[in-house]
Amino acid sequence: MDYMNEAYKEAKKAYNEDEVPVGCVIVKDHKVIARAHNLKEKNNDAMGHAEILCIKKASKKLNDWYLKDCEVYVTLEPCVMCVGALISARVKKVYFGARDLKAGALGGLFNLLEQKGLNHYFEYEYIHRDECGLILKDYFKEKRISK
Amino acid sequence: MDYMNEAYKEAKKAYNEDEVPVGCVIVKDHKVIARAHNLKEKNNDAMGHAEILCIKKASKKLNDWYLKDCEVYVTLEPCVMCVGALISARVKKVYFGARDLKAGALGGLFNLLEQKGLNHYFEYEYIHRDECGLILKDYFKEKRISK
Repeated sequence: MDYMNEAYKEAKKAYNEDEVPVGCVIVKDHKVIARAHNLKEKNNDAMGHAEILCIKKASKKLNDWYLKDCEVYVTLEPCVMCVGALISARVKKVYFGARDLKAGALGGLFNLLEQKGLNHYFEYEYIHRDECGLILKDYFKEKRISK
Repeated sequence: MDYMNEAYKEAKKAYNEDEVPVGCVIVKDHKVIARAHNLKEKNNDAMGHAEILCIKKASKKLNDWYLKDCEVYVTLEPCVMCVGALISARVKKVYFGARDLKAGALGGLFNLLEQKGLNHYFEYEYIHRDECGLILKDYFKEKRISK
């Protein structure tokens, strides 16, 4: 299964709900155990990012806050808060499909995991997918036009 | 009103529920608009930190994710994830009552706000309160004895 494409499907849901189109899935033992998309505006929640909502669902599914051996596929490079949450949930690996040079905390703006002394480190990999970035460009372009 | 003491009352609730005793209140226009304490274990939620739960409650109260002019009182220095969430919620100022040298991201382990290019910065102040640190020491001491 193309897990990044599953994350992209979630981003499309966000797009259709007029939210910044970012999607996420969490995989354990080759199964998708949680799916979520950004719902910041709808939920009036600064923490409504796709990764945060997906971590919550995965924890509920596993009945454990510790997301052991879980891999996260997210369409956009995570921000500081989300990298912090991924550390707290102790995920194994994070894949992201587009760079965020303005706010990405896995090398885009800066790399939070270069900080020594954190209580967990996860692996990560940027697997570039045009569609993950394009959907964001389209969204913000439409926003500018509709203003 | 002694807002840090209100946060401490929340930490005591966490203590009584066998959670790491950290408490938080959020203040706007000299009124406490949200109170929360750590519920990580009970909620099986890596994001169950006092600050995160308190931000959620404040957003619900204000019906807005943007916590404009809000001040946060928390008994322990916030971790990376919580500093990230406080940035995302765009709070005005954060006061904390005890240092966290192991995981604090406002100068304890390191200072995340020294990073350039973040999309928001808040003021912060360490107002040392013995009781905020002591309740944590007591909690972990008891944990060790009961093992």
